[in-house]
Amino acid sequence: MINIGLMGLGTVGSGVYEIINNRRRFFEDEIGEKIKIKKVLVKNKNKNRNIDIDDKLLTLNPKDILDDPEVDIVIDVLSEKEIAYDYLKYALENKKHVVTANKAVVSSKMEELLYLSKENNKAFLFEASVGGGIPIINSLKQGIKADDIFQIQGILNGTTNYILTKMYEKGICFKDALKDAQDKGYAEADPTDDIKGYDTGRKLAILSTIAYNQPVDSKFINCRGIDEISIEDINEFRKLKLVPKLIGSSQRSDNHIYASVEPLLVKDESFFSNVKDAFNIISLRGYNTGELRFYGQGAGKNPTANSVVLDVLDIVKGTYTNGKVYENRKISGDKYLTFDGEYYLRLSSKDGKDNNYLLNILNMYNSKHKVINDKESLIVILPWTSENLINKMINEIKLNVEDIRYFYSGIYG
Amino acid sequence: MINIGLMGLGTVGSGVYEIINNRRRFFEDEIGEKIKIKKVLVKNKNKNRNIDIDDKLLTLNPKDILDDPEVDIVIDVLSEKEIAYDYLKYALENKKHVVTANKAVVSSKMEELLYLSKENNKAFLFEASVGGGIPIINSLKQGIKADDIFQIQGILNGTTNYILTKMYEKGICFKDALKDAQDKGYAEADPTDDIKGYDTGRKLAILSTIAYNQPVDSKFINCRGIDEISIEDINEFRKLKLVPKLIGSSQRSDNHIYASVEPLLVKDESFFSNVKDAFNIISLRGYNTGELRFYGQGAGKNPTANSVVLDVLDIVKGTYTNGKVYENRKISGDKYLTFDGEYYLRLSSKDGKDNNYLLNILNMYNSKHKVINDKESLIVILPWTSENLINKMINEIKLNVEDIRYFYSGIYG
Repeated sequence: MINIGLMGLGTVGSGVYEIINNRRRFFEDEIGEKIKIKKVLVKNKNKNRNIDIDDKLLTLNPKDILDDPEVDIVIDVLSEKEIAYDYLKYALENKKHVVTANKAVVSSKMEELLYLSKENNKAFLFEASVGGGIPIINSLKQGIKADDIFQIQGILNGTTNYILTKMYEKGICFKDALKDAQDKGYAEADPTDDIKGYDTGRKLAILSTIAYNQPVDSKFINCRGIDEISIEDINEFRKLKLVPKLIGSSQRSDNHIYASVEPLLVKDESFFSNVKDAFNIISLRGYNTGELRFYGQGAGKNPTANSVVLDVLDIVKGTYTNGKVYENRKISGDKYLTFDGEYYLRLSSKDGKDNNYLLNILNMYNSKHKVINDKESLIVILPWTSENLINKMINEIKLNVEDIRYFYSGIYG
Repeated sequence: MINIGLMGLGTVGSGVYEIINNRRRFFEDEIGEKIKIKKVLVKNKNKNRNIDIDDKLLTLNPKDILDDPEVDIVIDVLSEKEIAYDYLKYALENKKHVVTANKAVVSSKMEELLYLSKENNKAFLFEASVGGGIPIINSLKQGIKADDIFQIQGILNGTTNYILTKMYEKGICFKDALKDAQDKGYAEADPTDDIKGYDTGRKLAILSTIAYNQPVDSKFINCRGIDEISIEDINEFRKLKLVPKLIGSSQRSDNHIYASVEPLLVKDESFFSNVKDAFNIISLRGYNTGELRFYGQGAGKNPTANSVVLDVLDIVKGTYTNGKVYENRKISGDKYLTFDGEYYLRLSSKDGKDNNYLLNILNMYNSKHKVINDKESLIVILPWTSENLINKMINEIKLNVEDIRYFYSGIYG
């Protein structure tokens, strides 16, 4: 009998509970072992839940799980990352296997928790922390055994992908698309982490750490988000047959790791543009396998719960692979890899500086741009350049035009 | 020390040899165990090979591997399927783990070999038999533990996908594209298995057997190939913005399994049309995870060799999952699932029967078709129909027009 302590009974937690209960017989037949959820940590016992669960299983006290010697596996699907970290640490020290879906904890504390799991000879698994139902963590752990992975690219955040899809398909503005995402439960009340690219950065850090066999800290990943994209931009993108996507990418070369999160414009027939709504895609490139792509639902109750349960089954069967514990090397601050190539750039001034004025300034820094619209804002395509140069240019423009507004995006094609 | 007997030193065999040798140190560090290729079975010791290998490792005698008590794992990358089957059976009976890339053996003898592997408590693994470097077998074995998979769709054959891509992109005829594929090593001298869809059928049978937890025999899968597609067709496809793909699909519903291989026309912005040249894609649908897609190189030296090596490492680490041994149920002969929907149909007669004549006959069976070209052949779009009905119709047309030529394909969209 394997006893599980489930911490959290929100969306994903309910899914985990249901899958484990519905497939109980199958697991017994498959594994020859009973799996039972012994206790469930909740914040409120009397909350109305859409789930058939015995009240006696519920507890408000984490110690009922963490200090119960009969609990073999602790599953963390809590929403609070700080609390989760303390619990997971405690659980591992208390010789319990840990499975978590919490990408914030994994991306910031992976090394410490892996170290603890190794010390205590227990599993610390987090398939559900990246890519929802996509088995990407396991595929990566497997993949790197025989291959050298040197590049990761992906649409890793369902919320922003949903927002961008709605903006592009319905021609609505960012605020309306965000509101829609919030109404549908795809975006949180405070969407900062998603729309600024930080969530993508954390997931990219987790994948890169495993892929490149060295710790990549999300704090040092350059993130640009999608909240500055305007309807004007969307209209131009459509004319250019380009689709905006928020893409995280990292690369290893010459023993350096480069990583960034940025909006990129992809051709409307590219594989990235086929990834719509809350779906995710992850592309890996290795020396042996070439490119591999994994696509699926990046979030949601059942896909994420399914990944949690797969980790549990790997523990029960003893077929899990813990991540490696690395030395404390970090990606260095200047090791960004932002897009080099053609760029789309929109500039506008609110205080009456007209497009000619902006164009003149632009001419001083980059003379080969092509104006594609100057009816409202000034919209240009810049020839082969880098984010660094564009940033520099915009900073200098700011010296002349105080209220400058802008958005730029590499054209990935 | 783990000793490997490598049977075959062709393209994939050389790749396996190289990966295991190049990463020897890494494996030792990772697994704490030395992995050594002890013997290599070849047909000709003096053949010129592009590989740095000690002649003393080579043998012409399979018994040097199969009867060597020190050999723990036998890898089969032979091209002859009948011989391979005998060897693999012998190896398992002789208490050796077996890894094979041979889809013909796996699809026809999976149950027997899995049974033997279970009896002898050894592994029988075949990741490389489907999808080249795509980790699809392992993902499926993992996936079905927690989820019910009910649909598989895929481009599973690199040769035909290469041929179709060249026909579509360069506007060349089937024969020229086949010749090109043969020149580049993508197609064999006798391409029948590929172009008639049988290879896709075998891979679909392997995937379906694992996904649906019951044996699916490729003999009972309805296969239609791509060799009847003409340049005229390609020109029409392009006008319709549709791309031809050879797609294997299977589905489980009401405890029946439906499976077929057929050319389908997909929209040029669909994810299938993005799969070009020798690449493969596999889409799985499960109740928990929804759709998952896996994309990568479906063949080739390093991707396929990489999959073989992953199986070897799983054996060495003891983290492998053998497939289940099923009862001997088969997919029944009438359980095809062919495409229902709009169909593209080309008809032509060589002996002077003109298009009007053909159209009149067609009118008798299906009055709502839309003629899209009647300059050379008669090309029509049929409204919602089934392969069964089209087949019936064509058989009846044959009664009137002896030398009728035709091609039809569902419009998947």
